[in-house]
Amino acid sequence: MVADRGKKPVLATVAALAGVSAPTVSKVINGRDDVAAGTRARVQEALDRLGYESPVQRRARSSGPAMVDLVIDGVNTHYSQEVLTGILDYAATAGVEVVLGNMTPGKLRSTNHEQWAQHMLERGRQGLVLVTSEVTDKQLDSFSRRNIPVVVIDPLNPPHSGIVSVGATNWAGGKVATEHLLALGHRRIAYLGGPEAAECSVARQHGYLAALMGHGVPARPDYMLAGEFYHQFGVRGTKQLMALAEPPTAIFAGSDTIALGVLEEARRQGLRIPEDLSLVGFDGTNLTEQTLPRLTSVAQPLKEMGRAALRSVLRLAGGEVLDSQHVELATELVVRDSTAAPKT
Amino acid sequence: MVADRGKKPVLATVAALAGVSAPTVSKVINGRDDVAAGTRARVQEALDRLGYESPVQRRARSSGPAMVDLVIDGVNTHYSQEVLTGILDYAATAGVEVVLGNMTPGKLRSTNHEQWAQHMLERGRQGLVLVTSEVTDKQLDSFSRRNIPVVVIDPLNPPHSGIVSVGATNWAGGKVATEHLLALGHRRIAYLGGPEAAECSVARQHGYLAALMGHGVPARPDYMLAGEFYHQFGVRGTKQLMALAEPPTAIFAGSDTIALGVLEEARRQGLRIPEDLSLVGFDGTNLTEQTLPRLTSVAQPLKEMGRAALRSVLRLAGGEVLDSQHVELATELVVRDSTAAPKT
Repeated sequence: MVADRGKKPVLATVAALAGVSAPTVSKVINGRDDVAAGTRARVQEALDRLGYESPVQRRARSSGPAMVDLVIDGVNTHYSQEVLTGILDYAATAGVEVVLGNMTPGKLRSTNHEQWAQHMLERGRQGLVLVTSEVTDKQLDSFSRRNIPVVVIDPLNPPHSGIVSVGATNWAGGKVATEHLLALGHRRIAYLGGPEAAECSVARQHGYLAALMGHGVPARPDYMLAGEFYHQFGVRGTKQLMALAEPPTAIFAGSDTIALGVLEEARRQGLRIPEDLSLVGFDGTNLTEQTLPRLTSVAQPLKEMGRAALRSVLRLAGGEVLDSQHVELATELVVRDSTAAPKT
Repeated sequence: MVADRGKKPVLATVAALAGVSAPTVSKVINGRDDVAAGTRARVQEALDRLGYESPVQRRARSSGPAMVDLVIDGVNTHYSQEVLTGILDYAATAGVEVVLGNMTPGKLRSTNHEQWAQHMLERGRQGLVLVTSEVTDKQLDSFSRRNIPVVVIDPLNPPHSGIVSVGATNWAGGKVATEHLLALGHRRIAYLGGPEAAECSVARQHGYLAALMGHGVPARPDYMLAGEFYHQFGVRGTKQLMALAEPPTAIFAGSDTIALGVLEEARRQGLRIPEDLSLVGFDGTNLTEQTLPRLTSVAQPLKEMGRAALRSVLRLAGGEVLDSQHVELATELVVRDSTAAPKT
């Protein structure tokens, strides 16, 4: 049966088809959680067969600009600014309005997601874009039960099946950064990463490990530190690495902000970059051009990631099925002035 | 007569009182520009006497969260991020939603403001916050004719009378920065400012001039360069200043991003900061803590400026009259490691 989109079947018809009461159908439509999973599935199937449009889908077909919620939970200034620019660029093209939520780090975790999702429904929102956020399956469920499309950019934790996410090729980026250092002749290469819970940082580290293995260089636990995507961690991590009996000759930093801290601590210790220590960053923000020496870094297509996320939310809101639940856009190593061969 | 707010007088009553036709009243209410100024004033007076509420005012009293448009035309990443954080903080407290517009620099100038203002009215927006924007009187008029409150943060051009603006004490900040350098013993002090059209930069420069005059130090035209609030201008300006027959011993930069460029060019020329050259920035963004040496800078209360702007828009939307059309929040010199006495 081809669904006649836009027709709104009466509750009683849906209830009869699903073999449940009308109030139960209403509960499912409103995303209430006091419905058994089996019952919900039956009701959803009946709704689909009768061509029911969710409030989100109806909104997508109605006139007037669509509205999408956006929450950026991260605090990496340069990173978020570029992602934001991409999202707003695409929003202007698509005639969509973006409602920006609180950016206080950690705020998202303590938000009442049930209330939020219900509010989005009432306000006719088409979907939600989350940036570098830590969200639980339970939280995401508040949206999916209401058929509100959610797309996560660079999720801190591995995305829940059924949630669409946009990222960059972190593993490949970590590998190419490390291979660049290996090709210059480095063998003592350290990785200063983001939080252990951050999927993207773990992927970068595994790319680093893959490159080392490919060159027969044993991995050293004392050369791998997990911290935060902050400048301060770059300072702290470099102190720790340089105090080792056999300090590294090169550092691969999990973000440009971490690399900024490495630069600062190196300068403090009188280490010249790249002569005494080579350094590769990750992100490719405009920071890379503002440091001296300019920073070799793995560029993420941040603007394009923002655009892709909003585009996906709108496609989902329009009832389209995406080819893939997860898209990774290509990273690219940009060699600048912070890497050189090690001293012999 | 005390206006009975909330009562909606019929067009005919307003028309009779103002001595115009009902369609003319409708034109004034909808902010159309094909009404003579005198006629508009008479209609507005009649509307006020009859206690008419504009769509914006009605929206303010209705249930559901209010929505405010926000446009940031500047590109100073650190600056905008902090202002944005303040706005979103206050929005969360006040239960207001913020719709973020395109951030592409220069985009605002080419926007059709009539369409935009009309759209805001139709979508029930309560007001507009503009950040570091270049807006003309004609553009602002599109909003004021529709009674849409507009608050500008750090307007690039002097604000049009009747427009509320929020800024920082730029003149006082420029003065205290320069006095700090004078107190250290500097006499050859240069100013590397933002665009000549930027009111805030001109105010900082006048503070600088006032400090010099107060100490009997003559101002030198070759020590005052106007450029852009960008890193690249800091590099270019420093090259130009240091090539002078008598180069300055201290530079007051009109923004932290300009100071970042000064740091870079100084390092390239082998000038030590602060031993060979003292440097003061302006803004007090988190950049000041990320440089080596850490940057002495005049801090603007950026978050508080964001909060104050949104608070003012909401008060205007609620029909309140503000005490002042322009608020300047205090700047504060924060001395870090980039300033010292000149070499003798």
